[in-house]
This record gives sequence, structure tokens and C-alpha cells, in this order.
Amino acid sequence: MSEKTTSDKMLGVLGGMGPLASAQFMLRLTLLTPAARDQDHIPAVLWSDPRVPDRTKGKLSGGADPLPWLLRGVRGLRQAGCGAIAIPCNTAHGWYEEMAAEGVPILHIVDAAAAELHKVAPRGTIGVMGTAATLAMRLYQDRLEQQGWTCITPTDAEMAGLVSPAIASVKANRVAEAYAPLATVVTSLAERGATAVVLGCTEIPLGIQAGPYATLGVPLVDTIDALALAAIAWARS
Amino acid sequence: MSEKTTSDKMLGVLGGMGPLASAQFMLRLTLLTPAARDQDHIPAVLWSDPRVPDRTKGKLSGGADPLPWLLRGVRGLRQAGCGAIAIPCNTAHGWYEEMAAEGVPILHIVDAAAAELHKVAPRGTIGVMGTAATLAMRLYQDRLEQQGWTCITPTDAEMAGLVSPAIASVKANRVAEAYAPLATVVTSLAERGATAVVLGCTEIPLGIQAGPYATLGVPLVDTIDALALAAIAWARS
Repeated sequence: MSEKTTSDKMLGVLGGMGPLASAQFMLRLTLLTPAARDQDHIPAVLWSDPRVPDRTKGKLSGGADPLPWLLRGVRGLRQAGCGAIAIPCNTAHGWYEEMAAEGVPILHIVDAAAAELHKVAPRGTIGVMGTAATLAMRLYQDRLEQQGWTCITPTDAEMAGLVSPAIASVKANRVAEAYAPLATVVTSLAERGATAVVLGCTEIPLGIQAGPYATLGVPLVDTIDALALAAIAWARS
Repeated sequence: MSEKTTSDKMLGVLGGMGPLASAQFMLRLTLLTPAARDQDHIPAVLWSDPRVPDRTKGKLSGGADPLPWLLRGVRGLRQAGCGAIAIPCNTAHGWYEEMAAEGVPILHIVDAAAAELHKVAPRGTIGVMGTAATLAMRLYQDRLEQQGWTCITPTDAEMAGLVSPAIASVKANRVAEAYAPLATVVTSLAERGATAVVLGCTEIPLGIQAGPYATLGVPLVDTIDALALAAIAWARS
């Protein structure tokens, strides 16, 4: 049953967190892959289980533990024969070590974002947006500051009044509503000195791209695209 | 590890044929689902293996047999615990019986399209576009004519010069190029009396939607959306 194809590596995608972000990841994985026909694209299995308990509540406020659900997905992808796993949910990377211990290499979304950040703001002060849990865990700040960047984040009031409600809107399919609050925070970070802003929650690029984001005047790092580019590099290596 | 969620049914999606169509299927499945948070969305596993040999060549011109690849995907989805399978590739339905024999119910894309067609053109003459193999197998014509519609299809010259090249463009990520040839054929079918046109290849809605399709003046049945709606109905039943 063999036929000449470009890649024999199968990518695993642990998604569903949220499902729109993982669908967009699959779309961008396809569109960013150089291909002349179906058989040039990257084989992938997407495990999209939106039943995973809320990651932010799990980390910050005693909500149900998402780890058993995350491990079920990792094991399902391993059983399907996947050689590496991409997780288009930044907050889920708070359980990175436990998932990686299952034995399948996981492409870290912060490393993928850092690679893109190097292209638009190779040093200096950058803004990081994300869920309250991603920021509280310092998923981005610790890794990026080790590499020489200075990180600033939204204020608590901006998180509670703008970023967190916008993320919830995207998860409820009210994507267009998310633009204005997210754009306000991008602008605020730029005014405070950010020379680029990392959209460190995969709902944020969906919301920003529902409006005229190109006019915000500061380079943005889309963590969906960054992870898709890292996955393509893995598949083609 | 339980939490109250809307659906405990896991949908299997046999995709990759092409990968852009199956990513779009996941996007539309998400956007068409009434949901207020991640946990209201439908659990799904997408098996996106674009290495499946070309279905049209397999049926019409002695190309490699796609069936072993299709069965591998069906078995992978069964092993993942999926309770039904949606296949966002019309031509692959030429192997429907062999795949259904694996024991997991498969939502038939022609039945899904017929349900949508009833809403826009409940009787009369309708146009059917698809791959050369889908039309040659009469996947749509036989099922729709049994239900009282009269089907017309593109001419051989339109297939060779317009429809088949447009489908190939989408598979190669050259989506915008597909609009003009596909719009020409939609218009031609309408001029020949079609009161609606079924876009019976999942690359065709992607190509049509890259241009001003709403001005074509004839209702279109998008088989990606039709199948997503059938999948949502299954998950919520």
C-alpha cells in the first residue's frame, strides 16, 4: 500500500482547547506547507477533546484536574503512531513535563513562539498576552527572559475586564466580539514600551484576526502559526 | 475524571482528502455547534492522512488502490473510541460499503447534502459538481434521482478544462485561482436549468468561497457544511 509521499512522519495534535483554535491550527498547518497535491501534505491526527476541564481553573482556583484528560489524548496519539505532538493550547503547557513523560516528543509552543519573535523583535521589551494561568505560571516570562527579552504583561484590571472575557467569547463562537478588547490591550502594551506582542493563548489570534489587526502598529506573534511552522519543520526534517 | 459535558459521543473524522477540506470541516463543525464554552463542543478525532492514493485515479484510471489506506483510518478511529465517522471527501464514498463493514456507522455525505438540498430546492432539476470519479460512479445522481430530483452535471469539456483543474488548485493551496473556473461552471449549470447546485467535492466550496460566490444567483449546497450539520445532529441525538 505504499506510494511516494513527501513525509512518512505522522504529527499528533492534542487539541480541543479550544476546538476553534485546533481547527485553525490544522488549516494553517495545511496552508503553510509547500504542497502541489494532497500527498505532499503532512499526515496528522488531531485529538480534539473539548471535555478537558478548564486549564486556568485547574491551575488557579481548585477546578477539576485536566491532567488525566491530557494524558488520555497523548496516549491516543501515541497509539495512532504519531512521532511528535503539537498542542495548540498555551495553558496546557503547564503540564508539559507530565505529558512528555509518556515518551512522545512534544513541540513546546513557547520555543515555537520564541523562534518567530526573533524575526520581529530580536531583543528588548516585549508584551505577553495569555490566560491568567499562563501568565501566573510564567510559562513565557521565564523562558523568554532567559533568552534576553524583558517581558511585560497586561494589568490585573486588563486581564479581568478585557483579556479573559475575550478568550471566553472565542470559545463560545462569538469571535468578532473579541477583537475590540484584545486590540485595546495590544495598544496598551505597545504604549508601555512593547516592541512586539506574543499572543500566548491560541484564542487570542482568532479574536485579533476578526478585526483590522494589521493597523495596530506593533508586530504580533501568532502562537497558532508559530506552532504550525515548528510542526512543519519537524515533519520535513 | 468526569465533568458535566454536553456530549459524550466521540465523532471520528476520516480526513486528509484533501487536508484543507478536513481542516475546514473541523472549523465549521465548531462554529455551527451551539456552545458557550469549550466543554459544550463535540469531542472528535480527525485522522488526516493525505497519503491516501488519489481516489479519482484509483476508480477511473488504474491508480493505486486507496482502500487499504481508508481502512487503516477507519480502524484508527474505531480504536480511538469513535461512535460514528464523517468523511469530508465525496469521492471516498465510492468505497462506502467496504468502510462501513468495519462496524462503525458512517454518516453518508450524499444523505447529508440531500437534507440541505431539500431546504433550497425541494424538487426539480439540480446541478451536481464533483470529481470525475464521483460523477462517473453516479454517487449523487442515483441517490438524488431516487428521491425525485433530476440531476444535470458539467460537460466533459467543463470537467477537463475547469472543474478538475480547480480541484487540483485547492489541493495545492492555490485556493483563489479556483474561483473563476468553478463560478463559470455554476453559471453554466444554472443556465441549463439547475435551480440549485450541489458542490459534491469538498474542495469546491473552498474554491467558490474564495470569490464573490453569493452573487452567482443560484443556491449552493456546501457538502462540508452539510456533513458538519449531520455530525452535530448525530452528536446531540
